[in-house]
Amino acid sequence: MSAYRDLRIDADRLYASLDELGKVGAFPDEFSDREGVCRLALSDADAEGRRLVKGWYQAAGLDVGIDRIGNVYATRAGMDMSLRPVMTGSHLDSVPTGGRFDGALGVLAGLEVVRTLNDHAAETRRAVTTAFFTDEEGCRFGTDMLGSAVATGRIDLEQAWSLTDRAGKTLREELERIGFLGEEPVGERTPHAFVECHVEQGPLLIRGDQEMGVVTGVQGISWWEVTITGRAAHAGTTPTSYRNDAGLVAALINVRLREMADCGEYGEMRGTMGVVCPEPGAINVIPGRVEATVDLRNPDDAQMERVEVAIQSDAAKFAEQHGVELTWRQTAKTAMVPFDESVQKVIAGIAEDFGLRYTRLIAGAGHDAQEWAAVCKAGMVFVPGEDDGISHNPREFSTKEQCAAGANVLLQAVLALADEDGFR
Amino acid sequence: MSAYRDLRIDADRLYASLDELGKVGAFPDEFSDREGVCRLALSDADAEGRRLVKGWYQAAGLDVGIDRIGNVYATRAGMDMSLRPVMTGSHLDSVPTGGRFDGALGVLAGLEVVRTLNDHAAETRRAVTTAFFTDEEGCRFGTDMLGSAVATGRIDLEQAWSLTDRAGKTLREELERIGFLGEEPVGERTPHAFVECHVEQGPLLIRGDQEMGVVTGVQGISWWEVTITGRAAHAGTTPTSYRNDAGLVAALINVRLREMADCGEYGEMRGTMGVVCPEPGAINVIPGRVEATVDLRNPDDAQMERVEVAIQSDAAKFAEQHGVELTWRQTAKTAMVPFDESVQKVIAGIAEDFGLRYTRLIAGAGHDAQEWAAVCKAGMVFVPGEDDGISHNPREFSTKEQCAAGANVLLQAVLALADEDGFR
Repeated sequence: MSAYRDLRIDADRLYASLDELGKVGAFPDEFSDREGVCRLALSDADAEGRRLVKGWYQAAGLDVGIDRIGNVYATRAGMDMSLRPVMTGSHLDSVPTGGRFDGALGVLAGLEVVRTLNDHAAETRRAVTTAFFTDEEGCRFGTDMLGSAVATGRIDLEQAWSLTDRAGKTLREELERIGFLGEEPVGERTPHAFVECHVEQGPLLIRGDQEMGVVTGVQGISWWEVTITGRAAHAGTTPTSYRNDAGLVAALINVRLREMADCGEYGEMRGTMGVVCPEPGAINVIPGRVEATVDLRNPDDAQMERVEVAIQSDAAKFAEQHGVELTWRQTAKTAMVPFDESVQKVIAGIAEDFGLRYTRLIAGAGHDAQEWAAVCKAGMVFVPGEDDGISHNPREFSTKEQCAAGANVLLQAVLALADEDGFR
Repeated sequence: MSAYRDLRIDADRLYASLDELGKVGAFPDEFSDREGVCRLALSDADAEGRRLVKGWYQAAGLDVGIDRIGNVYATRAGMDMSLRPVMTGSHLDSVPTGGRFDGALGVLAGLEVVRTLNDHAAETRRAVTTAFFTDEEGCRFGTDMLGSAVATGRIDLEQAWSLTDRAGKTLREELERIGFLGEEPVGERTPHAFVECHVEQGPLLIRGDQEMGVVTGVQGISWWEVTITGRAAHAGTTPTSYRNDAGLVAALINVRLREMADCGEYGEMRGTMGVVCPEPGAINVIPGRVEATVDLRNPDDAQMERVEVAIQSDAAKFAEQHGVELTWRQTAKTAMVPFDESVQKVIAGIAEDFGLRYTRLIAGAGHDAQEWAAVCKAGMVFVPGEDDGISHNPREFSTKEQCAAGANVLLQAVLALADEDGFR
């Protein structure tokens, strides 16, 4: 623990900032009294959120830099500027019907960390960089964790720039339009460590009565689009034996996915069919064609591969049995990313010091921290969410106390990591 | 057999009429070189088709009457006008992406019958009425077999008039707008017998290498909308045990329907889930809500009831197991309608006389004849369709020979029935 082990963030200020940022791109929820946010990457609302937070960075006296992919870094000097900084950050963009906390909490907890350090004129050995990254959600340009992935070398800058939205606008022209096509080359920031605070977006913490989560890594993701081509026919006149029912085969795949998840033979797999679109989609017509999606998750890459092989093999049997054709197209794939053991240990030690009920858990969703893990040691602090941690939804909600606990752990983790020895 | 047992219809004239009517509401098919038709009930295209056929009726010297629900009757006098006429007819309206033959074949085969009788100055004991009925498809105003059902007393005229389309237009105002709100009261025509020629709309005849079908009846239909309410959640962060996956329960119901149809314990049941609409419908979100449809068919009303009870009971078990709510709403229900044995015998006898390969089969779809079966003896002649009898599709197609065989059987059936004794 650092000399500033008793420092605490200002919970009211953090929550007020979340409130103010939450008004940018806000819309009323149809089903609750909460407000959702819509800040699609590089939209006008995203730009407004970016300007708001950048203004707060500047007001905190930080050294602000913007790179060629629009990531914004704000650095508070350390005592030894020859050492690599500790970085914390997350994202400001949201899904179309998002909540106030996803991404925003991590960005504003980072801001609150430096505001708190400022309040106490705290001196850290390493500099502290707080940041927000472009297009983490991937909803508009189709690739998630984009800014972090470009900054850490997984995705090429030119390739990222050339991504287009549905209206045909390129990411580069949109960056330029909103004034966030920075001058700083990408790939030049290699932190000593990266730590991100984020809402869990799941039920494990809240159902387990935990106040905080130490994230052990991010599970592997494999996304598929499956097209099932059978034969549309009249539901009344076509006997079972003459059917090529694409909808039935989609249903069989969905049921099999759940059986695989429940049988325990494929590790901690999760499988979801979120999209099923039968054509022509009429009560009295056997579906002739279905577009469906399969979302697979696994914390074990070898098990993930077994799942991919098994579901496609079983689906092929269903297809043969029912005389339909299958086409599988992979739309995303990331391997399991384990977080650094020593960073986990730092975070867990702080939680214990604070007397917080915490647990170690794997992240079910993708996060910026998994990209930074490619260039430095990295970790994450998870904050529980009410209502089973519902997220990507206007009802997403964490209390002031829950957010403050996460930000305090982040503060102390940043302080501890900023004190560390190590390469430069 | 009547004195006119050697009479034959003019196949070229019949097919030319089908061709001319097929141009009304025609659109090019995306997937074949055929043209589809869109003649939604009481649309401008339907009106144009009605005027065309009404003109042909008048040109054939028939006595044309239009009733209050827009059914159009055209009568060729018989020798004894105190006897009830033999009626044949079908419908001109189509589904939005229909073919040239569904309904149209029956209407034009009826026209061809009277044209042929005219050509030979044939004298029949009973009058022959050929007709077309309003809104058989039910696609626009939501209730199928509407005109026939009103004419034969199952549906009340005022209730039918008040049906609205999606734009809020009432059936009555649309009838008036297109000039087919007739003066003749409904329910005043009770034929001696009713016989309808129609395409099979299924694969049984063509796959069985049959040239004609004698229809034994129309199987019972039970239509349901099922709403499944679970809980939308993140596909990555939500373990199986915390899921309330509405999409999975829809899949389980779909799979169970097929198991029930295949197990042989529910008679000749057919079950189809044609619509499945998961919300929010995103690759990484567990469906929180699904709207789905279930189409059940059964030629045995007691078996149909067993199926309805069994699928809802099994679905309730799935729902309990996965923590979702189910709401079932019945949107249509008709009992099995058996066709008159003596009419079947007349039709089968003609087919044998002609040396046609024929089979007896039950109709899988609803037809006008099933409504007329409530007021007189009724029967149907099925014509095979190419491409597994595909229907409600622009690819719907029967050859000139197939259509002519059906119309010739219809002609001889009408002649035989028109010669019969019986009540008036």
